[in-house]
Amino acid sequence: MTYVLNHLSDASSGFVAPETPVQIAERLARQFATTAAERDSVGGTPKAERDSLRRSGLLGLSIPTEYGGLGANWRQTMEVVRTLSRADSSIGHVFAFQHLMLATVRLFSRPAQWEAWFEQTARHNWFWGNALNPLDRRTTSRQFDGWCEFSGKKSFCSGALDSEMLIVSAYEQEAPGKLIIAAIPTARSGVNVIQDWDNFGQRQTDSGSVNFERVRIEDNEILADPGPLSTPFACLRPLIAQLILTNIYAGIAEGAYADARGYSLNEARPWHRSPAERFEDDPYVLHHYGDFWAGLDAVRVMTDRAADMLDAGWQKGSALTEAERGDIALAIASAKVLATRVGLELCTRMFEVTGARATHAGLGLDRYWRNLRTHTMHDPIDYKLLELGEWALKQKYPKPTFYS
Amino acid sequence: MTYVLNHLSDASSGFVAPETPVQIAERLARQFATTAAERDSVGGTPKAERDSLRRSGLLGLSIPTEYGGLGANWRQTMEVVRTLSRADSSIGHVFAFQHLMLATVRLFSRPAQWEAWFEQTARHNWFWGNALNPLDRRTTSRQFDGWCEFSGKKSFCSGALDSEMLIVSAYEQEAPGKLIIAAIPTARSGVNVIQDWDNFGQRQTDSGSVNFERVRIEDNEILADPGPLSTPFACLRPLIAQLILTNIYAGIAEGAYADARGYSLNEARPWHRSPAERFEDDPYVLHHYGDFWAGLDAVRVMTDRAADMLDAGWQKGSALTEAERGDIALAIASAKVLATRVGLELCTRMFEVTGARATHAGLGLDRYWRNLRTHTMHDPIDYKLLELGEWALKQKYPKPTFYS
Amino acid sequence: MTYVLNHLSDASSGFVAPETPVQIAERLARQFATTAAERDSVGGTPKAERDSLRRSGLLGLSIPTEYGGLGANWRQTMEVVRTLSRADSSIGHVFAFQHLMLATVRLFSRPAQWEAWFEQTARHNWFWGNALNPLDRRTTSRQFDGWCEFSGKKSFCSGALDSEMLIVSAYEQEAPGKLIIAAIPTARSGVNVIQDWDNFGQRQTDSGSVNFERVRIEDNEILADPGPLSTPFACLRPLIAQLILTNIYAGIAEGAYADARGYSLNEARPWHRSPAERFEDDPYVLHHYGDFWAGLDAVRVMTDRAADMLDAGWQKGSALTEAERGDIALAIASAKVLATRVGLELCTRMFEVTGARATHAGLGLDRYWRNLRTHTMHDPIDYKLLELGEWALKQKYPKPTFYS
Amino acid sequence: MTYVLNHLSDASSGFVAPETPVQIAERLARQFATTAAERDSVGGTPKAERDSLRRSGLLGLSIPTEYGGLGANWRQTMEVVRTLSRADSSIGHVFAFQHLMLATVRLFSRPAQWEAWFEQTARHNWFWGNALNPLDRRTTSRQFDGWCEFSGKKSFCSGALDSEMLIVSAYEQEAPGKLIIAAIPTARSGVNVIQDWDNFGQRQTDSGSVNFERVRIEDNEILADPGPLSTPFACLRPLIAQLILTNIYAGIAEGAYADARGYSLNEARPWHRSPAERFEDDPYVLHHYGDFWAGLDAVRVMTDRAADMLDAGWQKGSALTEAERGDIALAIASAKVLATRVGLELCTRMFEVTGARATHAGLGLDRYWRNLRTHTMHDPIDYKLLELGEWALKQKYPKPTFYS
Repeated sequence: MTYVLNHLSDASSGFVAPETPVQIAERLARQFATTAAERDSVGGTPKAERDSLRRSGLLGLSIPTEYGGLGANWRQTMEVVRTLSRADSSIGHVFAFQHLMLATVRLFSRPAQWEAWFEQTARHNWFWGNALNPLDRRTTSRQFDGWCEFSGKKSFCSGALDSEMLIVSAYEQEAPGKLIIAAIPTARSGVNVIQDWDNFGQRQTDSGSVNFERVRIEDNEILADPGPLSTPFACLRPLIAQLILTNIYAGIAEGAYADARGYSLNEARPWHRSPAERFEDDPYVLHHYGDFWAGLDAVRVMTDRAADMLDAGWQKGSALTEAERGDIALAIASAKVLATRVGLELCTRMFEVTGARATHAGLGLDRYWRNLRTHTMHDPIDYKLLELGEWALKQKYPKPTFYS
Repeated sequence: MTYVLNHLSDASSGFVAPETPVQIAERLARQFATTAAERDSVGGTPKAERDSLRRSGLLGLSIPTEYGGLGANWRQTMEVVRTLSRADSSIGHVFAFQHLMLATVRLFSRPAQWEAWFEQTARHNWFWGNALNPLDRRTTSRQFDGWCEFSGKKSFCSGALDSEMLIVSAYEQEAPGKLIIAAIPTARSGVNVIQDWDNFGQRQTDSGSVNFERVRIEDNEILADPGPLSTPFACLRPLIAQLILTNIYAGIAEGAYADARGYSLNEARPWHRSPAERFEDDPYVLHHYGDFWAGLDAVRVMTDRAADMLDAGWQKGSALTEAERGDIALAIASAKVLATRVGLELCTRMFEVTGARATHAGLGLDRYWRNLRTHTMHDPIDYKLLELGEWALKQKYPKPTFYS
Repeated sequence: MTYVLNHLSDASSGFVAPETPVQIAERLARQFATTAAERDSVGGTPKAERDSLRRSGLLGLSIPTEYGGLGANWRQTMEVVRTLSRADSSIGHVFAFQHLMLATVRLFSRPAQWEAWFEQTARHNWFWGNALNPLDRRTTSRQFDGWCEFSGKKSFCSGALDSEMLIVSAYEQEAPGKLIIAAIPTARSGVNVIQDWDNFGQRQTDSGSVNFERVRIEDNEILADPGPLSTPFACLRPLIAQLILTNIYAGIAEGAYADARGYSLNEARPWHRSPAERFEDDPYVLHHYGDFWAGLDAVRVMTDRAADMLDAGWQKGSALTEAERGDIALAIASAKVLATRVGLELCTRMFEVTGARATHAGLGLDRYWRNLRTHTMHDPIDYKLLELGEWALKQKYPKPTFYS
Repeated sequence: MTYVLNHLSDASSGFVAPETPVQIAERLARQFATTAAERDSVGGTPKAERDSLRRSGLLGLSIPTEYGGLGANWRQTMEVVRTLSRADSSIGHVFAFQHLMLATVRLFSRPAQWEAWFEQTARHNWFWGNALNPLDRRTTSRQFDGWCEFSGKKSFCSGALDSEMLIVSAYEQEAPGKLIIAAIPTARSGVNVIQDWDNFGQRQTDSGSVNFERVRIEDNEILADPGPLSTPFACLRPLIAQLILTNIYAGIAEGAYADARGYSLNEARPWHRSPAERFEDDPYVLHHYGDFWAGLDAVRVMTDRAADMLDAGWQKGSALTEAERGDIALAIASAKVLATRVGLELCTRMFEVTGARATHAGLGLDRYWRNLRTHTMHDPIDYKLLELGEWALKQKYPKPTFYS
């Protein structure tokens, strides 16, 4: 598996140089992989692994060096996400959302706001959690003079547990169409992160609920300038989210392939009717692997292409046009559709190249399908295809929303 | 779900008449369904459910009435297997193997042997377990005068735990190509059924190991006349096994569909971009259901067609020709290929019509995929397609083996 | 190919007995097959073949014996359609529409009307053509006392050329929602059948236009009692049309398979990397054939099942309920979806088992795809799936229309 | 269609500058498109179009500028191939083989040989044809002193008709395993190009036979230094061939999409059950287009990635290692597998978004499927997948042959 991981990540190694972020990620991934199946069966918060991430410096990966971070661009950040997700997609997920949260403050708030958050995150290795889910309208906000008050509940709050900071959202009580987004310390009075995530996949993402009981939020914690989805540049935020999902899906598929390969080479035995003496020479086994490779290769290339386009758009900042943003959206959407399909197929078909004994619970190889199936439910692929179709037929770009 | 179960099983009801076998099975299925998700997560032996089966009389379902059984033909027996498998495919599995074991003694032994076993099974509601796996060559037999002695281990022994009788096999020490099959009490000295089944699917089938320590087996317990796979009629045994698998797969797929449907109608909410106000009117949701139906309908019809052909062949007894047996094999093989594909696709895609919340572990909806993925590893679908291809191109019937 | 044709049609032969309808059809099919590729490239009306059909007596196949026909039920009629379609799906098409037109008068008109038409058709071997297309609203009717007058144009009028009788339709000028359907001699003054069919498939179906210039139609030629789609029984008409399509698709797929098989066995050479010495032993070739068989077998069984259900419904006559009609509609719809998919896939993939030389124009093997692709455009499969989905999710039967 | 062509080719336009190669190709493509359907039905040699290519200067596209050519790299050359193939894949094919023949002399012969051929080709706009087919062993060579003599026949000789130069091959009579390849004038005495290509697709590629009757070939016309497939660099030749195929397939699929789109927007009408008033808003139509886009986007990106890798390898010249060559082979193989699958699917499904009237023969829309199906038979996709599988499982690079 090591070989494949190295190969897939195209690690360029320096001899005496300090580790690159990808090398750090690979080291952590190897470590996380040894307990991934066990932690999947237990669920809960991967506290030790989160702390390893804190110590690794990778929580500042996407923060520019001038604010104390590692200064990675999105392509590099996504490569780390994919690397971690191969070994453990729950950790890949919360790690990726760290950078989605940082991008959220960067895109929706004033420099005076996000610069401080960036610096403190890099300095203290803060972990950021997500309590933004815009489809859950149960949290509302009351406006006061210079502050407001959130009350209610949010679901699907990945990484909120054991976090230092939270991105939260609420709908204004007086103007129910208006979404208010803020960045606050998780320890803020009235915030209650509930350990109620118990789903069949992505089991250590803590994607459960957060309760807000009259939580006071200062005006300077609100991301209102330029505000959510306010400009083409700000509208990169949902695209980053979508590209993160794509890289997690890609990582899961690559991990499934690597484990299947290890099993095929070391454990599997040819079927009694196989013309091959060794399992690895069976014509049908090789055909499956040919399919796997063709699929994974396409996923990888399309995903990286999308990341490069995102980086180019990110560089343009507020000069980014709607059409440029639209092209990035399309590239990410087609990568995501591909990763979803290739991944689900591979996570089911991987057992065709292992045989029955690979269903042993101790190996935990079903977790690839469970993780991918759970995470691909984030938003419906049918409506992603609809958007691609509207472009393909009518040259109409996807309308920016928190999912497009 | 009740409605669907009734519809799918085409139950013909009599008003004051006693329950038909299918009605009994439906009643049990409803009962088993209430705990299926929980028992899936626990694993182990479904003792209470096995005892319910004992009390139900269904353990004698395929035993002719003259021996005290219910006299069902294979079509009827398979319908009960499918009915139980909709609710709980582990129970469907061990129940089906009961009848596979009975067919084994019927086809491989003399009337003086199987008649007694049939009568006692019907009278005492014996549960039969499987320790036959011919691919596991670790158990060998030493021949003595009037008896022989089995020593070694067998894997994949479904239903051996909590059984009264076992079908066991061993390769002769002196003639390693020769497989000896026998029927013995599970309580026989030297037989040790080990509770080591812990796989990610079919978790309550107890498909673990059996140890044989110098187990004495009398000649009249050996199924040697006409013996394993000795005649076209005896070669129906692996076809019954394959058709059982097909019905279990079909049942799992029908169960997944029924649960998805319940969720779609009662829980799911339309995506924010859906043109439909109600989830059940979403054009893409309906498209998925159209696919599901087209698939399930074909699986059902093909599976029943195969059962009817098996019944016709079974009626012919020793007059059955190789070609007639071959046609039955082909019908079962194409039903099995279809059930495997339709089922795996449905068990993955069912979540497209539920949304993310249906991945909650408490619902246990991933067990459909886990059960089906585990059980479809019984023998490789690639080699089943090879056999169909040899027929389609070269008009060559599948060569009878324990898997064909 | 002969063998396969016999096998697929399950012909039960009597030695000195007169030919059964299927035997007649097989004889004609062998004859039509020799010129099918050439006639496909030429297009136009297969006059000689139509006359062979006239002489064969098969134009009265579905007419009850008491009216001079062969008294075949729908299952038998469809078998003949499929047999002819294997060899030449254009001829299969016009032959099938003959019986659709007869069913149309049977279902929509009074006995006094259809009995006479049936008798004369059987006696004179009349060929019936179709000019009914309800989606083409260009033909309108003016009502007079005891008669009406049709003027306008109709498209997709399969088999109108070289026919003795026509089923025609028009929308009432005064009540544009009301469709009037009538049966008239093709030779009627003002009827002008135009030879303008030139499509890439089904090239000898003459599915071109018919012009109506003030065509006088007597009241007793109008099918008004009980009238179009007026009762569940009358609503069997579109189902017969859909089942005809399904059988033509199935026949095309079976013909493609038979031709591919002949080529594989007699012409194809193994690829230089193949482990097999003979093409017929190549593992991937056999895998394709396994897929082909699994698909064709399912199509055949599902299609026959649907025909049997149609026959049962047909026997009930006016006692047929909406639900019974609905169940038949569902069975035909799922067979049609399957035949469409299996057929299109097979007609493309058949070349994987032949090699490049089989693309020679003289062989005309592309006509299978062209015929199937053209004919499967009759009505959209997406909306057939929608109907199946409405049933599968909401237990709502398809609403009867001329396409459902 | 214009828009889409421009969009897909990412044309970077200069204002007053002379046309870029892609712009020339787009201009020619628009011109060729107007007669493509008609010429497809006629077959034969597209003499006028070949002469347009001669006049355009594009026959020297891949020839370095120092030899009088346009100096395009492979990425640019392939873009022109794809552009032409969108409009007419026969012309795309013979144009692409021009550059494959030039690459053949470049890679297999001494500078003293290929430099002269390059210069003369650029100066006189020579068209090169292909008579190399190594699988056809009917042409043999007798060795004399300073020359040899070819006699026999070759099949699948694309573009040999109306060419100035030919790449020819023969097996040595004395050493039948040894393939001799040479470049000779098509007008050489004894060479007879036969107009016997009549296949159902790629109809104007003249891929028929060439007869050799004691054709004298001088030693300095033989490509023996370094010789065929002699070094990793020389082994780029079959990869160029495979990448050409991939680009032609991609072009066909893009052309099919563009024509479907035009039809959907301008001609198609919504089905009567569609919830949409306009065809372009039908949810299922948009879903198909979403699929088309996701597929085409992946094909385009993967194909371009492979071209970039080829260019990098080409730059390395004789320093190219086996592993580097192997990586290029894998990238091209996975692009080809994807283009084959996406293309065949799209060329069949395009009619789902047009409706029945688009099957009119005059539109010739079936030619996309016919062209692609014919050309994808060049070498079996099953064995391409086998090679990818051998890499994916065993890290074994494809063994260089004329097809790998």
